[in-house]
Amino acid sequence: MDALEKLAEQLTRLPGIGRRQARRIAFFLAAEPDSFVDEIARSISFIKKSVRMCESCRRYHDGRNKLCIICADPEKDTAILLILEKDVDLENVRKTGAYRGRYFVLGGLMPLSGNGNTKIRMRELLSEIEKQSKQGLKEVVIALSANPEGDNTARYVKNTLAPHVERLGLIISSLGRGLSTGTELEYSDEETLKSALSNRK
Amino acid sequence: MDALEKLAEQLTRLPGIGRRQARRIAFFLAAEPDSFVDEIARSISFIKKSVRMCESCRRYHDGRNKLCIICADPEKDTAILLILEKDVDLENVRKTGAYRGRYFVLGGLMPLSGNGNTKIRMRELLSEIEKQSKQGLKEVVIALSANPEGDNTARYVKNTLAPHVERLGLIISSLGRGLSTGTELEYSDEETLKSALSNRK
Amino acid sequence: MDALEKLAEQLTRLPGIGRRQARRIAFFLAAEPDSFVDEIARSISFIKKSVRMCESCRRYHDGRNKLCIICADPEKDTAILLILEKDVDLENVRKTGAYRGRYFVLGGLMPLSGNGNTKIRMRELLSEIEKQSKQGLKEVVIALSANPEGDNTARYVKNTLAPHVERLGLIISSLGRGLSTGTELEYSDEETLKSALSNRK
Amino acid sequence: MDALEKLAEQLTRLPGIGRRQARRIAFFLAAEPDSFVDEIARSISFIKKSVRMCESCRRYHDGRNKLCIICADPEKDTAILLILEKDVDLENVRKTGAYRGRYFVLGGLMPLSGNGNTKIRMRELLSEIEKQSKQGLKEVVIALSANPEGDNTARYVKNTLAPHVERLGLIISSLGRGLSTGTELEYSDEETLKSALSNRK
Repeated sequence: MDALEKLAEQLTRLPGIGRRQARRIAFFLAAEPDSFVDEIARSISFIKKSVRMCESCRRYHDGRNKLCIICADPEKDTAILLILEKDVDLENVRKTGAYRGRYFVLGGLMPLSGNGNTKIRMRELLSEIEKQSKQGLKEVVIALSANPEGDNTARYVKNTLAPHVERLGLIISSLGRGLSTGTELEYSDEETLKSALSNRK
Repeated sequence: MDALEKLAEQLTRLPGIGRRQARRIAFFLAAEPDSFVDEIARSISFIKKSVRMCESCRRYHDGRNKLCIICADPEKDTAILLILEKDVDLENVRKTGAYRGRYFVLGGLMPLSGNGNTKIRMRELLSEIEKQSKQGLKEVVIALSANPEGDNTARYVKNTLAPHVERLGLIISSLGRGLSTGTELEYSDEETLKSALSNRK
Repeated sequence: MDALEKLAEQLTRLPGIGRRQARRIAFFLAAEPDSFVDEIARSISFIKKSVRMCESCRRYHDGRNKLCIICADPEKDTAILLILEKDVDLENVRKTGAYRGRYFVLGGLMPLSGNGNTKIRMRELLSEIEKQSKQGLKEVVIALSANPEGDNTARYVKNTLAPHVERLGLIISSLGRGLSTGTELEYSDEETLKSALSNRK
Repeated sequence: MDALEKLAEQLTRLPGIGRRQARRIAFFLAAEPDSFVDEIARSISFIKKSVRMCESCRRYHDGRNKLCIICADPEKDTAILLILEKDVDLENVRKTGAYRGRYFVLGGLMPLSGNGNTKIRMRELLSEIEKQSKQGLKEVVIALSANPEGDNTARYVKNTLAPHVERLGLIISSLGRGLSTGTELEYSDEETLKSALSNRK
């Protein structure tokens, strides 16, 4: 296989890049100046050395510390822990400025038809909850996407946490459902309408 | 203008029909058998005689009675009144089976940049609330779409109702906001995330 | 079934109108003034009396004459006949001003998986060709859409016409293939590229 | 700026990658094993050394030779030269198997509102045509996309080539226009219909 085809093939393994776009990118890189191509190759090659996984929330962060800037913040609200699928979800919640508590990144969702052999960080989550319950933790919030995989994972997490949550005297909750920005009543599904009605305020 | 063009032009005034589709429908009707065309013309021509506006909820309903089947239902929950934009929104909520209270159809939304000269049924709503407050009404729920026009109308309705609601001792609420079916955290706007966080349960 | 549901159901039989839109239109009509609703019902009801099928090209046209304004035009080019699927295709070609010949509307396409029991006007086409061949007709152009149904119908028309075309000494042709407005080479299929290459000029 | 943000920012400079996807890719790479990330960085870093621009057609090709495998092919048809925008267009034409002639990649299109300071390889094209006219070249085919930029560039190339083409006794042509696969007559623009009519065959 020639170098362009090989690079294109590798690029298709990145999220959201199809075969056609991969080939466009490969040809694009072939035509760019050395300086640009070297710079991007270097950034990719150093990314694993530049970032590390935070030992508490498990998101990737920049730098040498065991804890990321959020987990190390003494001002954070230690009473609440938000469980998310992935790093970009965490960034999106953080940007709202509406949440000041702790985070935990599961690292994935349970596939709908799986053998249970999933790679989500369940063991690490349990150990974090155990530890944080001695540091003031009161509530665990499941904050997963409102789609079948998200719902499936939420059920699994809830069931797995249930005995621990009870033993430690914690509350377990989920993000509220209802109309989201842009939702029109005419096109709303039954589930959303029911939630919107019961969560009225 | 010829008959086909004239019909096409009239069809464009129906909701969701553009010029091209209007012409297709006109040509389609020209080629259909007399029986089909007559039947559809008759149904349209009789629709105004077949339906009447319910004197309570203001939706169009079939038949001779002043009240529609929902408003005439003695089993309905008279303590709660849901305010909607249009008939199809009402049908959509009704289908969920999760709501057994009263309805009121505003008949439209406030345009964002308007002269206030709107055609929503505000006077009729006030008079309904006045009347129903003597029949056990406790709560008024604003159930409009989560888009700019819906939000604008909700504000207007809330402000207009405020003194009456207070005088009559009613609660005023809105449909809950949060994640709706299909919402992914990665693509959620700030407003939706904030609501989902504060409405967690 | 109530009148609104019945009207909605009938509207779904019009081209391009789904269930949801049909219900919106029914509710919309119920709320419009009598004058508007009557006017549209009358236009529909009169369409079959206002238009008739042209005895030559088979398109629907306005008025009392056997021939439509195009077929009656003494300036038309009688040497060429364009075979189309439907009236709106004819209007679209006519608008270009680039064609001055005769037309024939088949009235449909052959479904891909059919029993051959199609309603396209094949017999009428043959009789028109027979008649026009005595009035200077030299070429028959198949002008169907470049999709599977169009291609299938074109094959069928071509095969059926073949013996007649030969006997009468006519040329049979099809619309040219190649890049159409907006086509990008990167996203072109093989068939289009081959045609574009062989039709270069 | 932290390493993840920096990498994401660089990735947005690749064709078709927006900010959101760039961040997903950056986080994705941070979480992948070293081996995968190193492999992709190495492929990018070596792409400029692995490929070189063919000295005749100007596409990027694998290897040490001055001429790519197409230009070096002694079986190619030296009488015809196809002028394309970019490498992937060439690949797409080549895949059809319907063309055996020479190629030339312009390397871009003329922007519609530009200062004329374009980077397309016009000087190189003229020199290729000059050289190839002594090796049997008879026809130059402009094969650009059928959109405003493509048409604008085609005009510019044609005008610039005109005196040379005349002096060297060459034919200049363009890809054929007409219905492309999927085109429906009802939705065709005037330009496409006119071409389809005049290119009928």
